[in-house]
Amino acid sequence: MKVNGVPHRSISLDDDGWSVRIVDQTALPHAFDLLRLTDVEEAARAIADMQVRGAPLVGATAAYGLALALRVSGSDAALDRAGKLLAGTRPTAVNLRWALERVREVVEPLAPADRAEAAYRVAAGIADADVDRNRRIGEHGLRLLRDLAARHPGRPVEILTHCNAGWLATVDWGTATAPIYMAHDGGLAVHVWVDETRPRNQGAGLTAWELGQHGVPYTVVVDNAGGHLMQRGRVDLCLVGTDRTTAAGDVGNKIGTYLKALAAWDNGVPFYVAVPSSSIDWALDDGRDIPIEERAADEVERVTGRAEDGRVLRVRVVPPGSPVANPAFDVTPARLVSGLITERGIAEASREGLAGLFAEYVGAGRAARGGVGS
Amino acid sequence: MKVNGVPHRSISLDDDGWSVRIVDQTALPHAFDLLRLTDVEEAARAIADMQVRGAPLVGATAAYGLALALRVSGSDAALDRAGKLLAGTRPTAVNLRWALERVREVVEPLAPADRAEAAYRVAAGIADADVDRNRRIGEHGLRLLRDLAARHPGRPVEILTHCNAGWLATVDWGTATAPIYMAHDGGLAVHVWVDETRPRNQGAGLTAWELGQHGVPYTVVVDNAGGHLMQRGRVDLCLVGTDRTTAAGDVGNKIGTYLKALAAWDNGVPFYVAVPSSSIDWALDDGRDIPIEERAADEVERVTGRAEDGRVLRVRVVPPGSPVANPAFDVTPARLVSGLITERGIAEASREGLAGLFAEYVGAGRAARGGVGS
Repeated sequence: MKVNGVPHRSISLDDDGWSVRIVDQTALPHAFDLLRLTDVEEAARAIADMQVRGAPLVGATAAYGLALALRVSGSDAALDRAGKLLAGTRPTAVNLRWALERVREVVEPLAPADRAEAAYRVAAGIADADVDRNRRIGEHGLRLLRDLAARHPGRPVEILTHCNAGWLATVDWGTATAPIYMAHDGGLAVHVWVDETRPRNQGAGLTAWELGQHGVPYTVVVDNAGGHLMQRGRVDLCLVGTDRTTAAGDVGNKIGTYLKALAAWDNGVPFYVAVPSSSIDWALDDGRDIPIEERAADEVERVTGRAEDGRVLRVRVVPPGSPVANPAFDVTPARLVSGLITERGIAEASREGLAGLFAEYVGAGRAARGGVGS
Repeated sequence: MKVNGVPHRSISLDDDGWSVRIVDQTALPHAFDLLRLTDVEEAARAIADMQVRGAPLVGATAAYGLALALRVSGSDAALDRAGKLLAGTRPTAVNLRWALERVREVVEPLAPADRAEAAYRVAAGIADADVDRNRRIGEHGLRLLRDLAARHPGRPVEILTHCNAGWLATVDWGTATAPIYMAHDGGLAVHVWVDETRPRNQGAGLTAWELGQHGVPYTVVVDNAGGHLMQRGRVDLCLVGTDRTTAAGDVGNKIGTYLKALAAWDNGVPFYVAVPSSSIDWALDDGRDIPIEERAADEVERVTGRAEDGRVLRVRVVPPGSPVANPAFDVTPARLVSGLITERGIAEASREGLAGLFAEYVGAGRAARGGVGS
């Protein structure tokens, strides 16, 4: 989407034709810095440090990371080592492992000398497929927004979102934001309530920034405010992304999503999740089996922002020595979810609902995911 | 409660016998600064700037503020002017107006020269009554904690709290924390999950600090985490305070309380509110009629903390020019509340429940509040 009026993707090949250009998302919203990744270690660090984040973008970055490794050596040992390094960066992201398997499937039968070029081709394919998938999610979600607009003429459709499932979390369009960008570009009035999303503030830092750059009206609120807004009738639709959704429709997403789903349910507000099929874990039914990443205490203890003198720095907000817990995700049970917006259409959040759109993957278990998005 | 091993109250007369000593709560947890209030303007500023906060402490500060004003002039005009100045500082706090009325009732019949001394006496009485009320709330709540401990032998009782309803929000003991301090002091093992409580971080900044100073085990989490903790069975009890509770048991409290009540309800976790009767608005039934203060955008835009160089400063966390909304309170409907812990015992969150303990106030409307806590 647009930054300063210029269209951008979150990941692309640099002009040199081999290094990988990303947006440093840890610098946003304070600076728009483009970084060059030149080896697999830099790619792994970009994922681990969340310079790139969001399931689809993490997958694309991992695929390019393998390509960077194979460019140095196309050996089996190099492939194994790079795969392990990249797989260890984020335990919750199902796309990460999927993308690595996808590259491995293609390059393993090839001669070592041919592997790098093939890996670049797969990585580019993963990126393009992501853009296409999100565009389709946008088209299906746009119908929802049009319906809501028809019910509330004369004012914008009010959407609440959590974390960043925007174009910065994907390659372009975003997942939860795709319907929003399409509505806005097509002249349908929307307004987005943006949850701050502590501890890393991806809402205040990233979603607010990207909506603002593209010109979509929004308002930032703290994570605590969404329930009150729904009680007061200020939200027509909750629309979030997902890191991993089970085959039965339980939604793993950024910590705090579950609380907004409860408030939506209590107030009769529709709660939809944008789910690229690459985020569906066909091997899991019960969301309680989704592993929850416990991240560093430091993320809770300190907040990053821009001081009055212009410097970007971190300030401590808890007393020194305070014990801190930092579960990074939670699971919203399918019963609280109005629907899953996939690239093939909107499904009920249930095994039957997903099976209706993705019959070929149901019951296929973990292995089937290798084919998703192909 | 204790700071560095020394017992403190949040407000008291200075050694000079007339100026008022408070803890500057905006400096916590980074510094423990005691401030001297020497006139009504300083008292009003301390309330407006939240150097003192929490319904009971705001009430006591307002009463002392009137005393400081009457010390300069005991005239009707001075009393009116000071009352208006103090009443305008925080629109939501019912205790504030109650305390002002209480002083006015006592001093109005007196000669101007006698008014200051009487106002000091009323203010001290309000402070002592608050301590006594909280001690009683603690005793009633302690029974709940003992019951939970008996059900979960061999491990601490796990309590989640939101914002700061601790001794810093009252004169001593706190409301929601009174049962916790009593349990801890009495050797009953407790552990407290402390919500950060954006935007002003009263949980991370104040509750964590005061629990730590007193030696109560706790862990700080972001506001988004509580639902997940409850899903995983990590919370035995939610225990919060209130700024204003209606006669029918709807609970107005810090923004985000409603979301925790929903999660408690969804997971079968008891949700109790510590309610000094001075916080009950007998004139209101429906929580939707509680006015919700919209505070400055700046509180959302910037976070205060200690930088690595030791300086306490504010950093901006949203993009410049971002629209921001900052509703400071929300309302938890009585249907989500397991019980109200008052100084007279634990009531069901309903008109009947409260009437059973406070029959003399029911139906008496707004005027009756003048007598509450006397």
